[in-house]
Amino acid sequence: MFVENEWKIIEDSFDANRHQMAESIFSIGNGHMGQRANFEEAYSGKTLPGNYIGGVFFPDKTRVGWWKNGYPDYFAKVVNAPTWIGIHSWIDGELLDLANVTILSFERVLNMKEGTLSKTCVVEMKNGAQVEIKSTRFISMTESEIGVIHYELTALNFDCTLCMSSLIKSDVRNQDSNYDECFWQSIAQINTEKECVAVDKTIPNPFGVPQFSVATAMKNVFSRDIITVHKTEGGILSEIAGMKMRKGEPVTLDKYAAQVSTLNYEEQELAQIALQRAEDAAKKGYESLLKSHKKVWAEKWKQSDIVIKGDVKAQQGIRFNIFQLQQTYTGEDSRLNIGPKGFTGEKYGGVTYWDTEAFCFPFYLSTSPETVSRNLLLYRYKQLDRAIANAEKLGFTRGAALYPMVTMTGDECHNEWEITFEEIHRNGAIAHAIYDYVTYTGDRTYLVEYGLEVLIGISRFWAQRVTLSPTKRKYMILGVTGPNEYENNVSNNWYTNYYARWCLRYTLEIITWTKRVASEKYAELQKKISFDEREIGLWSDIVNNMYLPHDDKYGIILQQDGYLDKEPVTVADLPADQRPINQHWSWDRILRSPYIKQADVVQGLYVFEDEFELETIQKNFNFYEARCVHESSLSPCIHSVVASKIGNEEKAYELYLRTARLDLDDYNKEAHEGLHITSMSGSWLAIVKGFAGMRVANNSLHFSPYIPKEWNSYSFSINYRGAVLTVTVSKKNVTMSLTTGTIPSIQVYGTEYKLNTGDNIEIELKK
Amino acid sequence: MFVENEWKIIEDSFDANRHQMAESIFSIGNGHMGQRANFEEAYSGKTLPGNYIGGVFFPDKTRVGWWKNGYPDYFAKVVNAPTWIGIHSWIDGELLDLANVTILSFERVLNMKEGTLSKTCVVEMKNGAQVEIKSTRFISMTESEIGVIHYELTALNFDCTLCMSSLIKSDVRNQDSNYDECFWQSIAQINTEKECVAVDKTIPNPFGVPQFSVATAMKNVFSRDIITVHKTEGGILSEIAGMKMRKGEPVTLDKYAAQVSTLNYEEQELAQIALQRAEDAAKKGYESLLKSHKKVWAEKWKQSDIVIKGDVKAQQGIRFNIFQLQQTYTGEDSRLNIGPKGFTGEKYGGVTYWDTEAFCFPFYLSTSPETVSRNLLLYRYKQLDRAIANAEKLGFTRGAALYPMVTMTGDECHNEWEITFEEIHRNGAIAHAIYDYVTYTGDRTYLVEYGLEVLIGISRFWAQRVTLSPTKRKYMILGVTGPNEYENNVSNNWYTNYYARWCLRYTLEIITWTKRVASEKYAELQKKISFDEREIGLWSDIVNNMYLPHDDKYGIILQQDGYLDKEPVTVADLPADQRPINQHWSWDRILRSPYIKQADVVQGLYVFEDEFELETIQKNFNFYEARCVHESSLSPCIHSVVASKIGNEEKAYELYLRTARLDLDDYNKEAHEGLHITSMSGSWLAIVKGFAGMRVANNSLHFSPYIPKEWNSYSFSINYRGAVLTVTVSKKNVTMSLTTGTIPSIQVYGTEYKLNTGDNIEIELKK
Repeated sequence: MFVENEWKIIEDSFDANRHQMAESIFSIGNGHMGQRANFEEAYSGKTLPGNYIGGVFFPDKTRVGWWKNGYPDYFAKVVNAPTWIGIHSWIDGELLDLANVTILSFERVLNMKEGTLSKTCVVEMKNGAQVEIKSTRFISMTESEIGVIHYELTALNFDCTLCMSSLIKSDVRNQDSNYDECFWQSIAQINTEKECVAVDKTIPNPFGVPQFSVATAMKNVFSRDIITVHKTEGGILSEIAGMKMRKGEPVTLDKYAAQVSTLNYEEQELAQIALQRAEDAAKKGYESLLKSHKKVWAEKWKQSDIVIKGDVKAQQGIRFNIFQLQQTYTGEDSRLNIGPKGFTGEKYGGVTYWDTEAFCFPFYLSTSPETVSRNLLLYRYKQLDRAIANAEKLGFTRGAALYPMVTMTGDECHNEWEITFEEIHRNGAIAHAIYDYVTYTGDRTYLVEYGLEVLIGISRFWAQRVTLSPTKRKYMILGVTGPNEYENNVSNNWYTNYYARWCLRYTLEIITWTKRVASEKYAELQKKISFDEREIGLWSDIVNNMYLPHDDKYGIILQQDGYLDKEPVTVADLPADQRPINQHWSWDRILRSPYIKQADVVQGLYVFEDEFELETIQKNFNFYEARCVHESSLSPCIHSVVASKIGNEEKAYELYLRTARLDLDDYNKEAHEGLHITSMSGSWLAIVKGFAGMRVANNSLHFSPYIPKEWNSYSFSINYRGAVLTVTVSKKNVTMSLTTGTIPSIQVYGTEYKLNTGDNIEIELKK
Repeated sequence: MFVENEWKIIEDSFDANRHQMAESIFSIGNGHMGQRANFEEAYSGKTLPGNYIGGVFFPDKTRVGWWKNGYPDYFAKVVNAPTWIGIHSWIDGELLDLANVTILSFERVLNMKEGTLSKTCVVEMKNGAQVEIKSTRFISMTESEIGVIHYELTALNFDCTLCMSSLIKSDVRNQDSNYDECFWQSIAQINTEKECVAVDKTIPNPFGVPQFSVATAMKNVFSRDIITVHKTEGGILSEIAGMKMRKGEPVTLDKYAAQVSTLNYEEQELAQIALQRAEDAAKKGYESLLKSHKKVWAEKWKQSDIVIKGDVKAQQGIRFNIFQLQQTYTGEDSRLNIGPKGFTGEKYGGVTYWDTEAFCFPFYLSTSPETVSRNLLLYRYKQLDRAIANAEKLGFTRGAALYPMVTMTGDECHNEWEITFEEIHRNGAIAHAIYDYVTYTGDRTYLVEYGLEVLIGISRFWAQRVTLSPTKRKYMILGVTGPNEYENNVSNNWYTNYYARWCLRYTLEIITWTKRVASEKYAELQKKISFDEREIGLWSDIVNNMYLPHDDKYGIILQQDGYLDKEPVTVADLPADQRPINQHWSWDRILRSPYIKQADVVQGLYVFEDEFELETIQKNFNFYEARCVHESSLSPCIHSVVASKIGNEEKAYELYLRTARLDLDDYNKEAHEGLHITSMSGSWLAIVKGFAGMRVANNSLHFSPYIPKEWNSYSFSINYRGAVLTVTVSKKNVTMSLTTGTIPSIQVYGTEYKLNTGDNIEIELKK
């Protein structure tokens, strides 16, 4: 669909039917804000307009069929924000509408190395004018509130008049509004020769959620010194330039836009700040801004690039995923997180899921400075009070915390009982991210300052959520949904039970440690959260007596009580025309079938692999992989890592391919709604943790690499405790080179090495 | 709240806060149509307007939070129909608005013996006028499309001018419209001296459901020969009389209204038919119509009355329930059924639930001519093709039938997956009603003509719905919700498994019988539904190998897999301030608690009591009753019958009381939404099947009566195979008297009697 290229995504012809998909693929952002690749030009064809500011949301009144006690009042949705990209042109009075011209040539390029979106096209209008358009835009990685467009128009076949109008458009809507409301109201519009800014505010809500205001300012610099007029009409501010255009002589416009919000400033100062930002950007100029923007990207690539030789499509796929992850979350603001679609669409509301901790966290941990992953942890720490409130709403007491399934502010937003109330395993992933952070960075101070408080809240939840079975005399967890959402309201989901036990055990361990190394801080915390050590007795009892379902006949871990009563069929028995089953089968049929959306047991063995024999992992992988339809975009990558672990290289590669180009090749025919941002980390995991076998244990970095036979070599860089390490795996060797810092212990195939800056060691690849 | 009276419901003062509740309680109907007791007068206070025509519905677009495959497109709702009751008056120019006057005296009476609603009140208006209002209205039991109001107004303290306006109001709405639409559009309004009729049509829908049109006509007969004017404004047609009113001299209006619909006539003839009906009614006159109406009620009471001596509240309660059941469903039209709220409110859309077969059917079977219960069966027979379509939608094949959870036309309307897709036990109740009918009436021809076809469809469903457990080598039913809706998506719900097995067994038995007695008909049926007898092999195997969960330790039937893993607490451990739990607990907490909404196992033992030892019933009743919170209005009555069966008379009476006056005493604070019509049969069941122990087996009527110690005597009449039997139970004796027909075998406490017309036998009450 796209041209194969190592650093670029290139669309070399225009297809209106694919335009919405392309709008997703070519999305750009800077962690703070981002947008779909909507055209600057007028476009009367099908489009999904999308421009989003991280953290600026609207609490949309919940829509349900049937209310259940405990449901939240609202679903937080990142608001489709006023847009500043519009540059509309009239040639001899005819509107240049890209849906209404003959396209003679077209190229759209996402330059992933530099973080820019460009378009070059030649069109013929109804009036016969042939026009060439060249545009490049980016959202600055250095000036987080600034977006810039370099826009160039050339009449190719005759002289003509040009009217060019540069817009700010405030009357934008969310397509997924539950009650068809526009979430914005205009509170100020200034549009003069000197100042051009719109201030818009989200409409009031009855949930006590603060309203957000956003100011959008623009500064237009035309290549010619011309007089422009300013017009404000409805929700649209425009600055309009009229001029004669000579055939072959380009007219250019550099547009500097600033967008600031009450997330960071007072409402009354917004307009001035936005104007100032736009003005400052214009002063710096396009080239200067672009230069510093590219510099940030170069640094990001240095720490996170993966190079694959011998497979351009694979190279393009993995870079695309890394690029999207890096522009979705930069870790500068601990109030922000990673929406499942990032800044590329409205679906899932741009809110936070467990995806962040379970799938994205390891990526940022290894490819960014420590502050980035630390901010992801702090995001949850700051929402601990809301997690406690969520649990209280469901009847839990004494500081028990249930982190939300879906959230913006920490308040639960989701309203399907079988997920909202029952997919409680998310609490485990949030605790485990703390463990991952501490293990990877060695920074145990986080535990004392923040981590333990979260762990205690989560452990208090598990201690209340278990039921001591009067018949089996074991602690059970009844009525849950595991990561495998094709089972609902099951009892003793192994993954959930195992995770709950781990949380309790880890919390107990950290309590003991904290008491020893920071007894005063511990006493303070005890007081703050009224933590009575008598609670610990029950926790230990649960750790020692948690029920973990197992089947002796098959010698496997049991996904949940009763799983083996299901029809003994595997995915091999499933006719192709029935797949994906979520599009062909009714919900009850899916529920009672043995088919698995993503395998809990495999996910659990991935997280806790050290606690199991390789043979156990093998046996369970083989059993559950055979029953897994991978109808979650988060599924194949984890299976791929586990397949690598057990030496099933072919399977690992096959599963890797399912995530590597999920959106680029639009496997699921849903890229038009936005990209699967959180699952993009999956291909990184499959390579780094899977093919290269990277692990951290006992302050040592472990690798046990192999190479898929389809590749000539692959290499990746990671940031480990301040050091930047590049690992290259060829058909023959593994090379470890350290460009920055020192790593006291790296183990490759179990042999230990120490690396200093500049070191470069080569080890023979194990076959 | 209401005055105690054996035959009447009397409200002797007006309380605006209770008015909506009273509007429900005082509802009237005739099986064909019915309405809430809205005032004829203007009333600006809170009111729930409700006037409904059986079978006239609107397919309201489904509203869901999250769509699941298999959900229906629409929810059928009985439409709040144009209303003809309005009689508005102006006294010296001031509108008589009952919310805006001082009420000096007020009495509202529902005369259950005669089926009339009356109101007498004296009010003082703002202008000082004291006015007496007397109104009586009824919906005719003989002229099913006619409603009549006798209305009388008297100025008490001075002469004044009266302007009286008799209305038809078409712009009525359903409060529960999913998208706030008005379901009606006006297609004709005629309002002249001779003809006054409005024709309204339901708005178009995208689901292919036919639109309904309704014509509403009125004929107003004033006590004085005066000239009236006719005015049409928006959706309101009015005939207005102006006159001088002398103090103390009543003005009366007899209003004859007709309402006819395209359920029975062509749209183009509706207006003329309605006008003719109203004209004819006016010709007959109020007294004559009332007389024939009363005659029908007298007959109904003869066949269905229950007389309780020594407890006026109990007497009033049971008569109220019988009255509501009799005016909700008369069994004249097999396209109609019994909405959970009858004609008393919008909630549950007036559509059909399994309540009909499981709770109401025995009442109509015993208290009405056989055609009535036969029509209830035919309703489902006629919808068999839709039940097959419903099953197909969920992936079942080859004529498997899944009757809908909620329906108007046979199409499933409900959209909670855990109910819609999983509460499949309803299929059992529908099959069992056939068994009940045949057993009670002895009419086995129904089986040949209709019953077997339904039974085969249902059996085909069960045969596909079971799973042969590869580990236990038994047939299981996975992923269901039983009648106890406080468990969702459980496996091996005993009630469902047991019922499925019964359906298959009964179908096999009826197939064998039909082949013997009606082999030609059987062959025809086989051909019609492509029934291959090889299907039977699997059915027998399922019958022989159905998994029925049981716990050996407690020696009880197990509600479902894993039930005994729950916290070992009973209702006695539940603090009063937590009840009802459905108002205090989140859904997940309810699900994982051991508390039961209505006990499946008890319901199953009620249906299949002959197949169990008394001791088994006792043990299970005691176990599950202790865990049942009875938060379904359908729960206590069945428990009461079973408590009677096991000789727990005190418990039986206590449980009986919970249903006996549920709405009259407004236990659940929800009578304002409408009455619990389908649960009203529960108090009848508790008396007739419970206290009196009535059963039918082997063509013999069985009784084993006892009397609650709070009563002096009770007596009830039933219709059994054309004979009318009255059973009276006093503190000492049981009397059986036959007023019509012959009953060859009645067994009282196991002793057999034969009764002929006029026979009257007395048996000593067993202590």
